[in-house]
Amino acid sequence: MDKLTLYIANKNYSSWSFRPWMALTGGGIDFEEVLIPFDYPNGNPNIKAVSPSGHVHLLQHGALKIWESFAIIEYVAELYPDAGLLPKDRAERALARSVSAEMMSSFRVLRNACPMNIRRPKGKIAMPGGVSADISRIQTIWRDLLQKSGGPFLFGAFSGVDAMFAPVVNRFDIYDLVSSADTLAYMNVMKAHPAWRKWEEAARAERWIVPEDEV
Amino acid sequence: MDKLTLYIANKNYSSWSFRPWMALTGGGIDFEEVLIPFDYPNGNPNIKAVSPSGHVHLLQHGALKIWESFAIIEYVAELYPDAGLLPKDRAERALARSVSAEMMSSFRVLRNACPMNIRRPKGKIAMPGGVSADISRIQTIWRDLLQKSGGPFLFGAFSGVDAMFAPVVNRFDIYDLVSSADTLAYMNVMKAHPAWRKWEEAARAERWIVPEDEV
Repeated sequence: MDKLTLYIANKNYSSWSFRPWMALTGGGIDFEEVLIPFDYPNGNPNIKAVSPSGHVHLLQHGALKIWESFAIIEYVAELYPDAGLLPKDRAERALARSVSAEMMSSFRVLRNACPMNIRRPKGKIAMPGGVSADISRIQTIWRDLLQKSGGPFLFGAFSGVDAMFAPVVNRFDIYDLVSSADTLAYMNVMKAHPAWRKWEEAARAERWIVPEDEV
Repeated sequence: MDKLTLYIANKNYSSWSFRPWMALTGGGIDFEEVLIPFDYPNGNPNIKAVSPSGHVHLLQHGALKIWESFAIIEYVAELYPDAGLLPKDRAERALARSVSAEMMSSFRVLRNACPMNIRRPKGKIAMPGGVSADISRIQTIWRDLLQKSGGPFLFGAFSGVDAMFAPVVNRFDIYDLVSSADTLAYMNVMKAHPAWRKWEEAARAERWIVPEDEV
């Protein structure tokens, strides 16, 4: 089989890259990683050269290019059905897809106000209206899934859905957005995952600064 | 098997409702439809009472609730693998998921500036910056898929991916946003689909007005 190649951007800032990287690494999938640093002043020409959507986070498999984090996770889950990227039960899989799609389509206020930034020291910032509704809805999603599955991850064992929410775990953490015990417990489980630690270590070693994402 | 029940909002305005309804109807799936009209002045309490995300467009199957348009399409495609909702070929299915996820996560400028409005007479409006990039990218997606498949739909025969883009077909049409022959030909194919015509007829018969969506 052709090697899987995952294109990503800066580990410190790229929430879109973090999701599929965390899913594949957490699922024990063998893949090659190509990092193309953000180059916003020049319009990210190196990313656009490889990516049909112009977004970084692209999986290449032979001639096939797959983009968008959850589409990448679905593809790899089909190639490796025993990697645990999606639940085996049909009803659970439907729930996994519902919350992952909601993550992709929603929570714009939170995501725009609070860029992912792995190495940022923890500290509050002024929040626009609407952020608290996003925070509350995400906590409800997590609580419902953790209660159903018994945890420690959203569907019991680590899955691609945890990876979809990984950037939000960082946002909740660094901007000090949440205080409920069950949310903090889930965040600690995520931050202790070996894939998270590996990503975090690499992010901390990066020297690129993206001023737009330093808030 | 329990009956599938699809909750939707106003057919004239609800782009999120149009997608799964068009997919299921176009796929020949038997389902019951429950329409809950938008009630923005009161915060849409009737929608929130049934929908975990607070968004309308929810599929109920027994006790299971599935939300977000593409998650609904994936679930029904699993129940009815011969309905043609997703391509049978793995590489094509990966592409189907990439472009559907891109539709869910992107094109905010276009979607915010140009609400879906089935019965609106055709006519241009002033466009904010960034709309033309969204229009151009969507046309590229369609052109690439139509060239690969040979048309008339994005993956040859009608699929759930066409349904994902159905609200954009309406936007391109009513705000007079496109002029290239291949884009217009695809839009005409979509607007002639029996499921589209059935939805359009019902939308035209509605008497509700949502002022925010009349631009």
